[in-house]
Amino acid sequence: MSHQSQDAAPGNVAGWQAADAFPAGELQAAISALSAAVGAALLARGGQLATAESCTGGGIAEAITRVAGSSRWFGQGWVTYSNAAKTAALGVPAFALKRHGAVSIPVVRYMAVGALERSGADWAVAVSGIAGPDGGSEDKPVGLVWMAWSGPFGTEAEALVFPGDRAEVRARTIHHVLSRLLVLISAGEAPDPVP
Amino acid sequence: MSHQSQDAAPGNVAGWQAADAFPAGELQAAISALSAAVGAALLARGGQLATAESCTGGGIAEAITRVAGSSRWFGQGWVTYSNAAKTAALGVPAFALKRHGAVSIPVVRYMAVGALERSGADWAVAVSGIAGPDGGSEDKPVGLVWMAWSGPFGTEAEALVFPGDRAEVRARTIHHVLSRLLVLISAGEAPDPVP
Repeated sequence: MSHQSQDAAPGNVAGWQAADAFPAGELQAAISALSAAVGAALLARGGQLATAESCTGGGIAEAITRVAGSSRWFGQGWVTYSNAAKTAALGVPAFALKRHGAVSIPVVRYMAVGALERSGADWAVAVSGIAGPDGGSEDKPVGLVWMAWSGPFGTEAEALVFPGDRAEVRARTIHHVLSRLLVLISAGEAPDPVP
Repeated sequence: MSHQSQDAAPGNVAGWQAADAFPAGELQAAISALSAAVGAALLARGGQLATAESCTGGGIAEAITRVAGSSRWFGQGWVTYSNAAKTAALGVPAFALKRHGAVSIPVVRYMAVGALERSGADWAVAVSGIAGPDGGSEDKPVGLVWMAWSGPFGTEAEALVFPGDRAEVRARTIHHVLSRLLVLISAGEAPDPVP
């Protein structure tokens, strides 16, 4: 069910896995189509979705609510751009932010679980990354995004390095988050059991 | 400082004032330009912005964070799509939602003030409207959006009826909110004194 292009094999960027190169010109249309498919999958199962976003800045929620009637499967989202907001709004522990940085697997998992608990939704997605053009480092290059999906089966997280400029990195992140969410909802696939 | 087109005079739609008809094809570019100008105005004054969105579904925060370095003036936003979320996340009183409906001046003012208080920001914007195509009524037509701006001088609210389809209504709302915000920040203009 993945809508990702298979043209480019995943590569390796500074120790991180590079994302498939979905054609940039088709991103927005693909995001709208994915969002409609996610909505239909949630509606069919009576599921509710919540969002917790850092680098996408609200773009996932914006994509979800492009679909008319999306209030039936989406009630709430958070844009936690600052570390303080991640802690205050979603309960991300300050020690996790200090020790691992905002762009890390613990933080993005805490964000997803925090959104799930606070919203009462069945599914939550979370992202924290470096959209660029600034903020990159040798350890964490521009384009690196940690993503998490929480649902009935637990929480799954993944890091990818997306190509392109700031707008492209954000759009590719939204696309990948929705694509994987659709697979998880549709297949009832079980992520790893760690809470 | 308004970037709205003056081509079309405001009209009157079912008792509500119609928005100026900004050219639809230029909306996204204008939103990006406005967002950069808002960011520059906030940065020059050391001001922080928070967002509280219903019908735009995160689109205002997404627009603000299109700008590289926006973490310097934007820390937090809320997407409160359901009534329950408006109450839980922003403190909108349930009686206000019940008595006036989600698309109303009291609710949008409560959203803005709630976002301001909870974020610790200097400025907050809030929107609640009927993006369509469903959900309209004789009293509250599709395209009707209540918007509020809270800042150092108090809170101001406005209702407009935006033309176009769902995507257009949302984009026009984002454009108008940023346009007015830029005027308020830049001019230090004082809205009405009601809290």
